[in-house]
Amino acid sequence: MVKVNENYANLAQNYLFAEIARRVSAYKAANPDKKVISMGIGDVTRPLCKAVTDAMSAAVAEMADAATFQGYPPAVGYDFLINEIENYYTSRNIPVKAEDIFVSDGAKSDTGNITDIFSNDNSVLIPDPVYPVYMDSNVMLGRSISLIDATEENGYLPLPDDSTKGDIIYICSPNNPTGATYTRDQLKIWVDFALKNGSVILFDAAYEAFVSDPELPRSIYEIPGARGCAIEFCSFSKTAGFTGTRCGYTIVPSELEFGGVKLAKLWTRRQSTKYNGTAYIIQRGAAAVFSPEGYAQTRENINYYRENARLIMDFMDKKGISYTGGQNSPYIWLKCPDGLGSWELFDKLLNSAAVVGTPGAGFGKNGEGRFRLTSFGSREGTVEALGRLDLIF
Amino acid sequence: MVKVNENYANLAQNYLFAEIARRVSAYKAANPDKKVISMGIGDVTRPLCKAVTDAMSAAVAEMADAATFQGYPPAVGYDFLINEIENYYTSRNIPVKAEDIFVSDGAKSDTGNITDIFSNDNSVLIPDPVYPVYMDSNVMLGRSISLIDATEENGYLPLPDDSTKGDIIYICSPNNPTGATYTRDQLKIWVDFALKNGSVILFDAAYEAFVSDPELPRSIYEIPGARGCAIEFCSFSKTAGFTGTRCGYTIVPSELEFGGVKLAKLWTRRQSTKYNGTAYIIQRGAAAVFSPEGYAQTRENINYYRENARLIMDFMDKKGISYTGGQNSPYIWLKCPDGLGSWELFDKLLNSAAVVGTPGAGFGKNGEGRFRLTSFGSREGTVEALGRLDLIF
Repeated sequence: MVKVNENYANLAQNYLFAEIARRVSAYKAANPDKKVISMGIGDVTRPLCKAVTDAMSAAVAEMADAATFQGYPPAVGYDFLINEIENYYTSRNIPVKAEDIFVSDGAKSDTGNITDIFSNDNSVLIPDPVYPVYMDSNVMLGRSISLIDATEENGYLPLPDDSTKGDIIYICSPNNPTGATYTRDQLKIWVDFALKNGSVILFDAAYEAFVSDPELPRSIYEIPGARGCAIEFCSFSKTAGFTGTRCGYTIVPSELEFGGVKLAKLWTRRQSTKYNGTAYIIQRGAAAVFSPEGYAQTRENINYYRENARLIMDFMDKKGISYTGGQNSPYIWLKCPDGLGSWELFDKLLNSAAVVGTPGAGFGKNGEGRFRLTSFGSREGTVEALGRLDLIF
Repeated sequence: MVKVNENYANLAQNYLFAEIARRVSAYKAANPDKKVISMGIGDVTRPLCKAVTDAMSAAVAEMADAATFQGYPPAVGYDFLINEIENYYTSRNIPVKAEDIFVSDGAKSDTGNITDIFSNDNSVLIPDPVYPVYMDSNVMLGRSISLIDATEENGYLPLPDDSTKGDIIYICSPNNPTGATYTRDQLKIWVDFALKNGSVILFDAAYEAFVSDPELPRSIYEIPGARGCAIEFCSFSKTAGFTGTRCGYTIVPSELEFGGVKLAKLWTRRQSTKYNGTAYIIQRGAAAVFSPEGYAQTRENINYYRENARLIMDFMDKKGISYTGGQNSPYIWLKCPDGLGSWELFDKLLNSAAVVGTPGAGFGKNGEGRFRLTSFGSREGTVEALGRLDLIF
């Protein structure tokens, strides 16, 4: 008799964004005349840039011709893309080599699937609040999970102390949902902790392109020693608007090993057994992000979202609502006004202003009383949403 | 201290196709003037058909315009594709509904990732020989695996008897590598066995489009009761030349449950947590496969490969070499002539004819002395390869 994976019964009942979608659908059904503006789920709205769509159109044409048709891709990515990614790091003097780079269909897949290469007999340390996938993918494996508090007091940037324990440590910086970003000195404390304790840091850098302060690190490999303790996850979703196009990459340094086993070897085996590579057309589009035109065009989109973030921050400043993020992150993490709970604020914004945000409680207990807004909307939508919020605060 | 997944140490050292690639590279380096013809890895050579590339080009254009841009896709697939797949089954009177269908980036990912939703405390039954992913993805989890012999005596179509045990049963029909295809009566024996024993059948239908005999089943759901015991994996890779484009789908019947837990619910949760959906552009291309033009054009490509298979079968008949497959499968599974071992024949074909095949031993112990050729080459390549083989047999 088949036994299902019983750990799934321990997952929180509703995936955060599914519950939001449910409430928004109910509101829309009851208010068909209202135009709902989403500042909730972190999805982008700017179209793909011309350099990317030109490259994908050319790749589609190649696939239509027997002479240039591409079959199975390499499981870990085409060299033409891996080399561009290597250059992207090298140009910033960050020590990442082609052999460390694994292309995939996105950081969400990789942060979930990376769990495969570790024993379930590891302790897992996850910040609270944080992106739900870290927690859920480990709950599915029945692993021992402990939380480290990210709070207003520590600026949502927790650091380890002598009591901190964790074989596998998740860090997301710039953070989703808080927008808080570790300094080099702070990240060095984590790297030193991991090296001392034989821990691995799983560093989610999905929002690195939004860092505007040149003093802040955009890769954990800017920290000496990180190649000996850290895996980094990167995404084209927010950098280049690939949420619907699906491409990301993961850095597993070639020398990173535990118990004499190289993690890059395990990850290669995992990917070549349970993944068949990322579509040629998509990888051609991703490679174009690094061309001079592609870089300029994607930066233009990022600056567009930054201006949205500035408008949201100005609004919060004017209303005296405290927040983190916005400056080096597409997310603004605010303290719910009037002592509201985070789902209460969600319902208030939805019902009074037809504006959708994300309740902080969905990201962990320390998210209660907090709320996430994103800068990924259109300019018009962002301005209109702030105008509506102006009437209720 | 981090503990790696020690089960990886129990994997066979080299993934079959990596070892083939290694030997072919060495041959090419030593014989730069020789033109190697691959009849080895099951990769296609015909370009994508016009209906598919037209649909993808249109989708790329949509992604370039803010008004039609697509962000995060549904984790389980767009309705426009799911509805086409539903119609594909309905038109054959096979009971599959939209809610049973989960779109992904390919059958390899799904056959590997489906392991997530089952407890490691299940016994796994795998035919020998078979596609290596079933074995490897379960070895990675440390599961108890037993093999059921597929041999010349049973036509490479093993059936259960009273001593057969297995909570999770893998079946691939038409089979990779043997090309053997179960009849309805034979599949019914497996379905009845699974229903009686509370087993789940993981049915790999990646090659269903190559079945030419109308009496043979192309879906396990043609068998009464299968919705209560079987998951089916399907792929556009071989049907529509998507090996480099990456799209597949998995059928998890909505009523399929064990211990009161619906597998479709677990799979939805797995995919929405550890996968972020298949690219919009790719799904638009996949949907075009089901249009009248797309269907006609992909059938034309399948018939092209069928003619290659016929040429290979004629050659084997002429030489008196026995084989299975070819008729309802793109694979020809032959008995190595002259008592050669399967890697011996591999080396002989490579070194004497610069023709690459796949050694049967790579698929399991019963593959020793057997060899797989594919019909996925170009017509010219297939004809030339057979001409070269004619000189050495």
